[in-house]
Amino acid sequence: MKVDGRPWRTIRLGPDGRTVEIIDQTKLPHRFETRRLETLEDAAEAISVMRVRGAPLIGATAAYGLCLALRDDPSDKRLDEAALVLAATRPTAVNLRWALDNMTTLLKPLAPDERLAAAYARAAEICDDDVAACRAIGAHGAKLIAEIWERNQRAPVNLLTHCNAGWLATIDWGTALAPIYVAHDQGIAIHVWVDETRPRNQGAGLTAWELLNHGVPHTVITDNAGGHLMRHGRVDLCITGTDRTTATGDVCNKIGTYLKALAAHDNGVPFYVALPHSTIDWSICDGLKEIPIEERDPREVTHVAGCDDDGVVRSVRVTPEGSPALNPAFDVTPARLVTGLITERGVCPATKKGLLDLYPEKQGK
Amino acid sequence: MKVDGRPWRTIRLGPDGRTVEIIDQTKLPHRFETRRLETLEDAAEAISVMRVRGAPLIGATAAYGLCLALRDDPSDKRLDEAALVLAATRPTAVNLRWALDNMTTLLKPLAPDERLAAAYARAAEICDDDVAACRAIGAHGAKLIAEIWERNQRAPVNLLTHCNAGWLATIDWGTALAPIYVAHDQGIAIHVWVDETRPRNQGAGLTAWELLNHGVPHTVITDNAGGHLMRHGRVDLCITGTDRTTATGDVCNKIGTYLKALAAHDNGVPFYVALPHSTIDWSICDGLKEIPIEERDPREVTHVAGCDDDGVVRSVRVTPEGSPALNPAFDVTPARLVTGLITERGVCPATKKGLLDLYPEKQGK
Repeated sequence: MKVDGRPWRTIRLGPDGRTVEIIDQTKLPHRFETRRLETLEDAAEAISVMRVRGAPLIGATAAYGLCLALRDDPSDKRLDEAALVLAATRPTAVNLRWALDNMTTLLKPLAPDERLAAAYARAAEICDDDVAACRAIGAHGAKLIAEIWERNQRAPVNLLTHCNAGWLATIDWGTALAPIYVAHDQGIAIHVWVDETRPRNQGAGLTAWELLNHGVPHTVITDNAGGHLMRHGRVDLCITGTDRTTATGDVCNKIGTYLKALAAHDNGVPFYVALPHSTIDWSICDGLKEIPIEERDPREVTHVAGCDDDGVVRSVRVTPEGSPALNPAFDVTPARLVTGLITERGVCPATKKGLLDLYPEKQGK
Repeated sequence: MKVDGRPWRTIRLGPDGRTVEIIDQTKLPHRFETRRLETLEDAAEAISVMRVRGAPLIGATAAYGLCLALRDDPSDKRLDEAALVLAATRPTAVNLRWALDNMTTLLKPLAPDERLAAAYARAAEICDDDVAACRAIGAHGAKLIAEIWERNQRAPVNLLTHCNAGWLATIDWGTALAPIYVAHDQGIAIHVWVDETRPRNQGAGLTAWELLNHGVPHTVITDNAGGHLMRHGRVDLCITGTDRTTATGDVCNKIGTYLKALAAHDNGVPFYVALPHSTIDWSICDGLKEIPIEERDPREVTHVAGCDDDGVVRSVRVTPEGSPALNPAFDVTPARLVTGLITERGVCPATKKGLLDLYPEKQGK
């Protein structure tokens, strides 16, 4: 997607073909800064302090982290050590371990002097595969937007999204935002309501920044406002991402998603969830009972970070000293509230049958 | 209610029996400061910059503002001028004009030298009447809490509230928080989930501060979290306030109330709304169509105020420069989602019949 009119990816090789360039997302939306990763340690630090975030991007950064580790020493020992260092950065990220396994399985059988080139090639493949999957999600989802656009005599389609499931969470395109970018690039008139997404404000900070830079009309709203807008007919379609999807179509996504799904259902607004197949957990069927919900640092609730009038990024406390806070990071939206799932293979109902029709190879597993 | 163990009201006479003492709510929750109002101008400024807020408290402050105006000059001219100055402070506050009318209707027929004493007496009455109404709401609502407490073998009752409908919005007790204070003072074990209530954070700032100071166990959560907590059985009862209630029981309250009512309904959690009769608008029946929703300054969405590590209160921007925001201040919760209304006359269903049974004098009006 574009930043200041120029196309970007969240991660790419530097001009030397060896070092890696990322966008430092801890600085967004207040400053756009790229950062050069030259060593294993650089890559590990970027993941652990969340300069890069979003499961696909974490996986890609870990893959390149292995490449950087092998530059001076392509030995078995170095490979094993590097994989351990990277795996420890974000212990819960599924894609992180998947990417490391994928890389080491490829590299281990090779002679040490063949490893470096193979590692860079595979890391690039991992990135390109993710871009292709997101682009496919975008194409399938854009059809839904186009249908509404035509039905409404080409009046601008009002979408609502929660959190950031945009290109910053992936390599390019994103998941929930991919249909929005594809539709926009096709010339369909759209406008996006961006939930600010407390407590970490990924909507106000990252989604708004993405849409602003790619030129997509949007308006930031509080998480409280979406229901009111739906009641007044100002939302045509909701699209969110998901961190984990059950085999029956329940979706676990950023806290507050459930409330928007309820409001959409109450007002007859279609509520779609966009996902690559890697978020589907075929082993579970009841999201409410089976998905443990991470409770994060209460300080994310009691304090808000932003940019002051002098351009300094500061954290301010909004609660009285002494009041405790609780910070559940995700909630589960039951499949009954989800109109459909947008995957890289197409759109399906949020049901076991719907998913198995798209992924028949999972039948009986 | 209590601050640091001592009982307070939001407004009261100073030790001299003539000047007026308020809590400066613009400093909360970060500093507790009282402020002496000595002149008409002091009172008008306190209302207009929101040192006092909440309809009942604004009315009471205006009543005392007239008293202060009459201290040196109890003439007709002074009375009229003062009423105009005070009425202009918050043009939309219904209680403000009601209190001024009530005062001038009483004072005009009196001889100028009788007015000052009568004015102070009536201002005190206005305050006491509001306290009595809120106390009655508290007593009726506390019975609902007590029933849940007994039913659950006296396990702590988990309540959820949105925004601030506490004693800071009234003279004492509050509306939605009155049942909570009464139940707590009766020895019923309770715990309150406090929605932070973006964009102005009246939950995180004012409700948490009230509960903290009165010693009521509570936890601040983001507005996104309530649905998740209800899904997991961690909320027994919701109570909110209302700014305007239709004759049929629709409630217009702080933005986001509707989303919590949807979640309560989806999870079988009782959802009550507490109100004095003065918020009922007997002239309207369809809240969604007939209540205009104020859209406030987008800066309330794009910027957040809080206290930095050095104790300085600052405002920080959370959105990228250039992203627009929309800030609807209220939403309408349809009566079908409201379990009951808690008024100073008792609890009734959120229906026309329910309200008329409590207020039979409104029949046919």
